Amino acid sequence: MFTPTTYDTYDFANRRHIGPSPAEMAEMLKVVGVETLDQLIDETVPRAIRQDEPLSWAPLTEHALLQKLRKVAEKNEVMTSLIGQGYYGTVTPPAIQRNILENPAWYTAYTPYQPEIAQGRLEALLNYQTMVADLTGLPVANASLLDEATAAAEAMAMAQRSAKSKATAFFVDQSCHPQTIEVIRTRALPLGIEVIVGAPEALEPETVFGAIFQYPGTYGHVRDFTDLCEKLHEAKALAVVATDLLALCLLKEPGAMGADIAIGSAQRFGVPMGYGGPHAAFMSCRDELKRAMPGRIVGVSIDSHGNPAYRLSLQTREQHIRREKATSNVCTAQALLAVMASFYAVFHGPVGLRSIAEMVHLNAVRLRDALVAAGAEVAPEAFFDTITVKVGVGQMGILAAARQRGLNLRKVGRDRVGISVDEMTDGEVIARVLDAFGITEPAPETVGLGFPEEMLRQSDYLTHPVFHMNRAESEMMRYMRRLSDRDLALDRAMIPLGSCTMKLNAAAEMMPITWPEFGSLHPFAPADQAQGYAEVIEDLTAKLCEITGYDAFSMQPNSGAQGEYAGLLTIAAYHRARGEGHRNICLIPTSAHGTNPASAQMAGMKVVVVKSAPNGDVDLEDFAAKAEAAGENLAACMITYPSTHGVFEETVREICDITHRFGGQVYLDGANMNALVGLVKPGEIGSDVSHLNLHKTFAIPHGGGGPGMGPIGVKAHLAPYLPGHPETGGSEGPVSAAPFGSASILLISWAYCLMMGGSGLAQATRVAILNANYIAARLKTAYPILFMGNRGRVAHECILDTRPFGECGVTVDDIAKRLIDNGFHAPTMSWPVAGTLMVEPTESETKAELDRFITAMLAIREEVRAVADGEIAAEDSPLRHAPHTVHDLVAEWTRPYSREQACFPPGSFREDKYWPPVGRVDNVHGDRHLICTCPPLESYAAE
Amino acid sequence: MFTPTTYDTYDFANRRHIGPSPAEMAEMLKVVGVETLDQLIDETVPRAIRQDEPLSWAPLTEHALLQKLRKVAEKNEVMTSLIGQGYYGTVTPPAIQRNILENPAWYTAYTPYQPEIAQGRLEALLNYQTMVADLTGLPVANASLLDEATAAAEAMAMAQRSAKSKATAFFVDQSCHPQTIEVIRTRALPLGIEVIVGAPEALEPETVFGAIFQYPGTYGHVRDFTDLCEKLHEAKALAVVATDLLALCLLKEPGAMGADIAIGSAQRFGVPMGYGGPHAAFMSCRDELKRAMPGRIVGVSIDSHGNPAYRLSLQTREQHIRREKATSNVCTAQALLAVMASFYAVFHGPVGLRSIAEMVHLNAVRLRDALVAAGAEVAPEAFFDTITVKVGVGQMGILAAARQRGLNLRKVGRDRVGISVDEMTDGEVIARVLDAFGITEPAPETVGLGFPEEMLRQSDYLTHPVFHMNRAESEMMRYMRRLSDRDLALDRAMIPLGSCTMKLNAAAEMMPITWPEFGSLHPFAPADQAQGYAEVIEDLTAKLCEITGYDAFSMQPNSGAQGEYAGLLTIAAYHRARGEGHRNICLIPTSAHGTNPASAQMAGMKVVVVKSAPNGDVDLEDFAAKAEAAGENLAACMITYPSTHGVFEETVREICDITHRFGGQVYLDGANMNALVGLVKPGEIGSDVSHLNLHKTFAIPHGGGGPGMGPIGVKAHLAPYLPGHPETGGSEGPVSAAPFGSASILLISWAYCLMMGGSGLAQATRVAILNANYIAARLKTAYPILFMGNRGRVAHECILDTRPFGECGVTVDDIAKRLIDNGFHAPTMSWPVAGTLMVEPTESETKAELDRFITAMLAIREEVRAVADGEIAAEDSPLRHAPHTVHDLVAEWTRPYSREQACFPPGSFREDKYWPPVGRVDNVHGDRHLICTCPPLESYAAE
Repeated sequence: MFTPTTYDTYDFANRRHIGPSPAEMAEMLKVVGVETLDQLIDETVPRAIRQDEPLSWAPLTEHALLQKLRKVAEKNEVMTSLIGQGYYGTVTPPAIQRNILENPAWYTAYTPYQPEIAQGRLEALLNYQTMVADLTGLPVANASLLDEATAAAEAMAMAQRSAKSKATAFFVDQSCHPQTIEVIRTRALPLGIEVIVGAPEALEPETVFGAIFQYPGTYGHVRDFTDLCEKLHEAKALAVVATDLLALCLLKEPGAMGADIAIGSAQRFGVPMGYGGPHAAFMSCRDELKRAMPGRIVGVSIDSHGNPAYRLSLQTREQHIRREKATSNVCTAQALLAVMASFYAVFHGPVGLRSIAEMVHLNAVRLRDALVAAGAEVAPEAFFDTITVKVGVGQMGILAAARQRGLNLRKVGRDRVGISVDEMTDGEVIARVLDAFGITEPAPETVGLGFPEEMLRQSDYLTHPVFHMNRAESEMMRYMRRLSDRDLALDRAMIPLGSCTMKLNAAAEMMPITWPEFGSLHPFAPADQAQGYAEVIEDLTAKLCEITGYDAFSMQPNSGAQGEYAGLLTIAAYHRARGEGHRNICLIPTSAHGTNPASAQMAGMKVVVVKSAPNGDVDLEDFAAKAEAAGENLAACMITYPSTHGVFEETVREICDITHRFGGQVYLDGANMNALVGLVKPGEIGSDVSHLNLHKTFAIPHGGGGPGMGPIGVKAHLAPYLPGHPETGGSEGPVSAAPFGSASILLISWAYCLMMGGSGLAQATRVAILNANYIAARLKTAYPILFMGNRGRVAHECILDTRPFGECGVTVDDIAKRLIDNGFHAPTMSWPVAGTLMVEPTESETKAELDRFITAMLAIREEVRAVADGEIAAEDSPLRHAPHTVHDLVAEWTRPYSREQACFPPGSFREDKYWPPVGRVDNVHGDRHLICTCPPLESYAAE
Repeated sequence: MFTPTTYDTYDFANRRHIGPSPAEMAEMLKVVGVETLDQLIDETVPRAIRQDEPLSWAPLTEHALLQKLRKVAEKNEVMTSLIGQGYYGTVTPPAIQRNILENPAWYTAYTPYQPEIAQGRLEALLNYQTMVADLTGLPVANASLLDEATAAAEAMAMAQRSAKSKATAFFVDQSCHPQTIEVIRTRALPLGIEVIVGAPEALEPETVFGAIFQYPGTYGHVRDFTDLCEKLHEAKALAVVATDLLALCLLKEPGAMGADIAIGSAQRFGVPMGYGGPHAAFMSCRDELKRAMPGRIVGVSIDSHGNPAYRLSLQTREQHIRREKATSNVCTAQALLAVMASFYAVFHGPVGLRSIAEMVHLNAVRLRDALVAAGAEVAPEAFFDTITVKVGVGQMGILAAARQRGLNLRKVGRDRVGISVDEMTDGEVIARVLDAFGITEPAPETVGLGFPEEMLRQSDYLTHPVFHMNRAESEMMRYMRRLSDRDLALDRAMIPLGSCTMKLNAAAEMMPITWPEFGSLHPFAPADQAQGYAEVIEDLTAKLCEITGYDAFSMQPNSGAQGEYAGLLTIAAYHRARGEGHRNICLIPTSAHGTNPASAQMAGMKVVVVKSAPNGDVDLEDFAAKAEAAGENLAACMITYPSTHGVFEETVREICDITHRFGGQVYLDGANMNALVGLVKPGEIGSDVSHLNLHKTFAIPHGGGGPGMGPIGVKAHLAPYLPGHPETGGSEGPVSAAPFGSASILLISWAYCLMMGGSGLAQATRVAILNANYIAARLKTAYPILFMGNRGRVAHECILDTRPFGECGVTVDDIAKRLIDNGFHAPTMSWPVAGTLMVEPTESETKAELDRFITAMLAIREEVRAVADGEIAAEDSPLRHAPHTVHDLVAEWTRPYSREQACFPPGSFREDKYWPPVGRVDNVHGDRHLICTCPPLESYAAE
């Protein structure tokens, strides 16, 4: 008798994305001690806050998704962009696209906080820093920032805290990109910094603590800022130069002009424009300023064998450690894109980069000469890649004529058009441009420089051997492979990072981002050419509104912290609009993410800390007291839900009510949204605004430390105060360079939502909670679980207490490093409580993988017991010597435990073990001897 | 003063594809002992045979190539294919596309002849064999064949040599695919087999040695062949069933009907149609027949620790060993595609596959019911996925109406259309089909089976745990990664395989093959929908003609051996057409590739072996004598140039002249074409026909043992006799299922030619020769170089003699396995001379990588010396214990050499060492205990 199966093999949510199978879930529920998943959810998530209606939309299969995306892609019209303004056509070397951007070994990696299992990415990022430092002529560079405009704002803040000048104004060259100027204004306002925009000649150095110049300028100008840098220094002010890496391959570098800080975008080093991002911004500075520099810095230290090893340096500057003292909330980078840019430089080498820069420049000169020959009025005199042409009232006609020829030019003022030449511009494009101007005479073949010869760069760059490797693709491919093999990413094992939600980044979700229809769009392309993106953004917005219960979203913030900041700015603008601009107090619980207070300060708010109750919850009494004390000055509270302790607090509504009662607005941090989607809508339980970490909850991969996206959702009353943008309008200033942030990766989150369907998303949340409770249930006798809800349940993560082991000398670090031997990335260490491990398994991990992790943790617990019982000293134990490398094995073995125990502890794969390339990395040494560009090769031999 | 650089960073040939940089080449030339590369070429390649004009076309950059390919892609029109006939729409799981098909760790791997460094692929192929064996219900399967039609022909040959019946005819079910019938005819003709095509009912068992039935038939028929199998067995004849894996997920399996052999295509298990290929064909058989089965079989053996290890079994059956006795020239598989199909099964598992099969079947029934309800005459009664509709004189109108709706139906006879439902067919497609028939009534929702219930499959399949893994994508992705990590492919190290030309497979070349415009085309789609492919084939043909000096090409042969066979068939047809059909002697030198004699026999020729002179050249005197002896029966000679000994023989023109003098045709084996391209045109030095290994010379990756492409070029007089095809015409029969073989990978070779340009191709040849001579120069004092040209030069490969080491007990195997410790894949072992290593570095390897290899080989030589000098016994030496695994390190160490020496011999990477997952694999054990499906998990534990 024929009975059809009821199995849907195309069910992406339950078959591919969610780890445990139904049979596994049944076993897990038994261990957790409930009958059904419903029961577990009831015991975990307070009924009172649950949403009534399930999420509405039906799921798509992977195949249907890709078909749909192809249709949407076709709605974008890819023209040749000559708009410039910070975004340029670039050729991504196919080997980089395939082996980095499309390779899960690179894109699924976590931030390299555990350096022993991140040496590959760290090396690539060190190459990036070296490249930035060399090209800008400033010795210290960080491992990337979010975009050029926010990097400029960070530079302003850095100048303020570093300059000896007491002035409170900051000068901005009017030749900066318009979006840069506006983001600086946004940032300056709450900090009380006066922004003076003008021509460099108008600068009065003694009136400012710093100034930023754009070089080459947004309309093309190339000039030497040496004189102005000198004058600023005389006034004890700092000079920032916003610059362009490709131009610096040919032009005098900012360091040689005396600049203190250089910033800019590395986008045109092989990273597609992506309708605005993601791409890596850079920052470099003089050595004296390095400890004031925001962002992550990769440095060289040594490992337990004394061999060189890379790590993140100066982490003590980070906002999660400095908290209230932080003056920047930057806590991520654009690691994946910085890696791509660094490989672009490795691929081309200095001579190749110079040849590209020359080609770009000479094509620009060729174009200028042809226009001038035809009688056009072209500016500036000295330029690298960008010129403007005076076209008078014919402006719209010229722009239209260009569009008819498949070209986008830049509209400049009301009577000029801008043209930026890039790596993709060839003779055929130039001919089309001339044709749009009605010029049929061909462009001249031989041309001279388009700037004075004294502006030619004199110094060498990229002299390190890595930029002089043989650049054959075989060699490059193997270098990329070797680096990726040194890293432990999601393609090999679960990464149970608390609060970081390292879920599956499905292949189908990743595919569209490398389609040219999405990759090749300029963020300021005419809207009618970006209808595909419009559809993506509109539908994603609708879905996020349904998920969160908010009424509007801004896609502009391109990181979670950026989202917090934007959300608080929105609140501040709302208060201002109601004539309550005095409201400036922000209540933040002690347990909050470190970015919260930093963001509040950036938004001009005064942070008041609220205590935690012993069970980890917000101390409601203290909260009420402080809200009352703030009274009419209460601007906002910032809470995380479920709490950073991994618990659904029952009092969340009450906190919102209190806040509202005193006229404040509730900011609910979306970091833990993975425990809410489909179950609870923040907008329905009293919150007014949240950011969502699309790179956590909505499947954008972490990329080894970026990109991220942090769009903010708000209730209707706040919607008018969301970030605006000079290109798209709005009453408020922008927070990011591009109107929709890192638009291209919105595709990933959209694809995720579409394939999961509403029911799949809710089920993912439920299983995330199940997985966390399963781990808690299995490990609770070995490791005390620090916080639980009042029915003994954790939310989507749980905190394992290792502080009791301190007595016998075992540290949380020992456990984290020992996990590497077991084949795991450590959970979040010492946050939110020192000496603990916070585990977030996510819904994507199977029971088998959870069990492997549990096996490892239990084996470690047994090793701790051996130390505690005096069987082995902590300093002799495998815990302290972890992680073990192949070189330990090969060397003489004098340990009191066996090689077998060292290298194949329970949980490790027998045939496919991950071997860390270095032993435990020395943090103190690294910070003491800061080296953050590629060290000369001899230094490796020497050590 | 500004001086522009002259460096072209986009020069793909010299910057990316060719390994050594100009500076490196200068150093290498010094070592080789010549002033210039020109001088080396002059000393290597006889002047007399060099071409006069350089190749003509200019190179494209990677970016320009991809732009051009996008335009070409747009010329293909992708319609929904319902043609069937062996090619079906299928959904490639995105995770498989990204992690297998687009991952160099999989696609650049070599054939797994060195099992210790190929355990990943071998496991995936064992999964494939298990899948085929299970689904067909026959216990032994091979690791794939080229396509369904050639698999059918192989099955015929296998039946002939295995059946006890003395009959000389073979019965072919008229329900076989037309291309299958024609390929069988082509194959049968020279072998003197009579092919009887008819309805199964017409079969007279005693008149045949075997019969093939198609199940389900090409027009959809499902019937039980049990009765016919029985009758065949009574007549001592064998039953072959051509079948469909997806159908077998629902239908009674051939094994249960008594079939002896099953064949078919695994294409619809996730492998795009690709306008004909590549995809994996399968073959399975009864246990008694396994040693007669052609192709590669993966088996389970044990390693030096007694642990299970995979390897290629029964290699002694292969044509390179059996030579003149071979009856099949199959020497490759479609490994990459078999791996994809096996992962498709792992992804879906038995229940998922069954659900897909049910969906396909029930959609077919739904369609049939709707057509019948509307009054159409639909056949057959019992079917799985395919039906035909009688449409009378309206046939062309229906086909056109379907095309207007984006559908391709199959033209059947003059009054019917065929419709094959597949995995991509959904309700919307069905509605469009009905609409094309003018039916507006919707298809019924609930339907029954479209075949008798007794045809339902009763047995389980895919019961092995690997098909019951948790199918979450995280788990799958990690399984794919773990397997790939076990393999050593081109993405980690050079693979210096003599005669296999493991050159760079550039990312840009690989990109287009996964574009749907190329992947989703049915090979029998109307020509006007395949204009893009037409352009690719036409231009590639023109370029290959220019390169080879031939006048025409056939792209049909989908492997090198297939090309040889097709070339000889062309020669035979030519002789026949001239009334000289009696010419049947083929002269083949002893040094020839093993496939040569096998191909000659398949083409009905008698092989006469010609001696080698002591220097390895063809013995010209013997050649002349044997040609004369053959006289008017001389059909052809087969030579390889440069010779398989790696030497440009000076006498090649003379050999051609002698052959022509006696009326024979010259077949020049293209295996060594990498030493000729741009320097020598075979068609100009006297050859009449050659096959080209596009997977060697023209950058198609080896895929771990396939796909390949072996198009043949011929002089004009042979052009009329090239293979034809039932779908595209021609006087001769087809040799492959699809008119243009594995058409989609032609893109790779085309892209390679376009980016290299004519000058780049010639330079690649020159550098390939330089690289080989550099290795020879550096290693000649350590290892005698076996053959050299008369000026002391080797061609593009060189043979290192290790036979002298035999005296002290060191074998060539020891050296090959020790190279694994050094981080290298061994060169070709014991071919063309036993006890030697043939090294072909190719032009893509940098000097640094060559030096690493040389370092390793010299270190090994030093270890041999230690044995020879009595410092260590051969059986105690690291040579004999190689390769060393991590488990050797962890275990007690009792060896007379150190762990360090064992695992980090010179050449190995320190931080990024490749660790073989198993010790040396026991070949004898494996062949004695043949296990070629996944062993139960307990067996691992037990051993």
